[in-house]
Amino acid sequence: MHDISQYQNFFINYLQGQNIHKEPANLYEPIEYILGLGGKRIRPILTLMATEVFDTDYSKALPAAMAVEVFHNFSLVHDDIMDDAPLRRGQVTVHEKWDLNTGILSGDAMLILAYQYFEKYEPVIFRNLARLFSKTALEVCEGQQWDVDFETRNDVTIPQYLKMIEYKTAVLVAAAMKMGAIVAETSEKEADLIYDFGLNLGLAFQLQDDYLDAFGDPKTFGKQVGGDIIENKKTYLYLKALEFSSSEKASQLQQLFTISSEDNAEKIETAKTIFNESGASKATQDAIEMYTLKAFETLEKMEINAEKKAVLRTFGENLMGRKV
Amino acid sequence: MHDISQYQNFFINYLQGQNIHKEPANLYEPIEYILGLGGKRIRPILTLMATEVFDTDYSKALPAAMAVEVFHNFSLVHDDIMDDAPLRRGQVTVHEKWDLNTGILSGDAMLILAYQYFEKYEPVIFRNLARLFSKTALEVCEGQQWDVDFETRNDVTIPQYLKMIEYKTAVLVAAAMKMGAIVAETSEKEADLIYDFGLNLGLAFQLQDDYLDAFGDPKTFGKQVGGDIIENKKTYLYLKALEFSSSEKASQLQQLFTISSEDNAEKIETAKTIFNESGASKATQDAIEMYTLKAFETLEKMEINAEKKAVLRTFGENLMGRKV
Repeated sequence: MHDISQYQNFFINYLQGQNIHKEPANLYEPIEYILGLGGKRIRPILTLMATEVFDTDYSKALPAAMAVEVFHNFSLVHDDIMDDAPLRRGQVTVHEKWDLNTGILSGDAMLILAYQYFEKYEPVIFRNLARLFSKTALEVCEGQQWDVDFETRNDVTIPQYLKMIEYKTAVLVAAAMKMGAIVAETSEKEADLIYDFGLNLGLAFQLQDDYLDAFGDPKTFGKQVGGDIIENKKTYLYLKALEFSSSEKASQLQQLFTISSEDNAEKIETAKTIFNESGASKATQDAIEMYTLKAFETLEKMEINAEKKAVLRTFGENLMGRKV
Repeated sequence: MHDISQYQNFFINYLQGQNIHKEPANLYEPIEYILGLGGKRIRPILTLMATEVFDTDYSKALPAAMAVEVFHNFSLVHDDIMDDAPLRRGQVTVHEKWDLNTGILSGDAMLILAYQYFEKYEPVIFRNLARLFSKTALEVCEGQQWDVDFETRNDVTIPQYLKMIEYKTAVLVAAAMKMGAIVAETSEKEADLIYDFGLNLGLAFQLQDDYLDAFGDPKTFGKQVGGDIIENKKTYLYLKALEFSSSEKASQLQQLFTISSEDNAEKIETAKTIFNESGASKATQDAIEMYTLKAFETLEKMEINAEKKAVLRTFGENLMGRKV
């Protein structure tokens, strides 16, 4: 096995070797642009790692890893339109740099391009990859729809919120890993176990994202700390705070999350105080730990040697130890 | 073999038996809505017909036919956003009835749902269908991009225009038929021949659409006659008229196609007079006939019996004899 930065390099080399620059330029240039913006490339790295965990050379998994990354970027392009986001990874979003129609159409083309990468595999692997991919992609759309629906609802429960982040974020992490198992032609049991490992890690990852958005260190956290609070996003922290608060405190929090404050700094401080005092911060950290441990338990059930387990465990620990 | 209205009924029965109504409702209701708006269902009918032409029961082709129809409707939903169209088949478009975000996300889900219909087939057929589908879907995106690009260009050539309508319209007709051949597991040669038949028929169909848009009978033509002229669309009629006109007449036509006229009736009459007097109308009718004959020539090369050839020929003749 290689280390994470090596897998990242293998993937970036493969990505850069792809000929995406085709005609019509107005369709393909935005695709090249968004794929070139960088990012941590976590999902394709997981596909390559999973393949080697199952004793198969990572190079066999490069097209599948590429499909995952192209799909992830497709979802970013369309989500940025829906969120009216001006920036992505610190750069102008596709629909801002070009226009709405370009964002829609280039995104569509990326979804199709992702499927085409599976054509590198023989029929049975092709079908298994494409089937998992379609199921996952549809769940990501459903997760995005729930997220949109939740914005205008005040009755979202914790299980509903968890289902939303599972679909919107965790299933793609899980599928990225299972694709490695499919490429390595493991047993179905092993493939399902690594899927569960990825799913729980993905849930922990998203909950940590919620947590860091409020409590991250401004020096190291990539985004604006308190962004979710400013935008009145009903994250796990918020929902847990409502659950744990007296009805008076809960009303205060609900009221705070309906306004667009003049003084964001004060709003952020007030919200964070409620999150801490209600026990929501602690509950969120507990949930992150619980999902991480669930992921590690799944790992123990897998029929891979101790060294391989340690690599996956280290990856999980690094991901959870992140400050950014 | 059955007749066209029977294939249409087989398909509609299958479509109505699909359970599209799932959660989240805001994602799936728009899909149910657009698929229920009707239309002639030409593409799925062609898939079913092609399967029976190759001596295989149409019922085996129903999922592939559904994939084609779902994809076609996906492209309508996203194209209607890009064209800012208020109506589709006389009903409110998805992005108007719901909103922009719903149009984008439901469209994305439809593209994925289309792929899922191929999962009904065993691996080799699955891969052949999905591969043809991805290639075609990407060409449709490219055709749409060329169409958008051409709106702001004044140097579009006839070959470029033909390539655009080939990608935007004809390849899906061709692929719909070839999918029938794939389901029937014909030789590659036969599959390619029926693809060519569909491609030429699709080109003739789109050119006839251009022609009828200007010269159709308002009583029977479904859309507003002269719509392309009002919107300054550079169709085959327009490009041929430019080619055949003196530079003075050509300038007059170019000028006419830059304005948003107060008096559309007069603009339409002026354009139609130029189309007729320049010989562009005749050239368009000739091109329609030429592509139809090319389709029929391809038919002759196929190793199917005379009865089957007659059915496909009749379908082509009906399509070309249409007034709507």
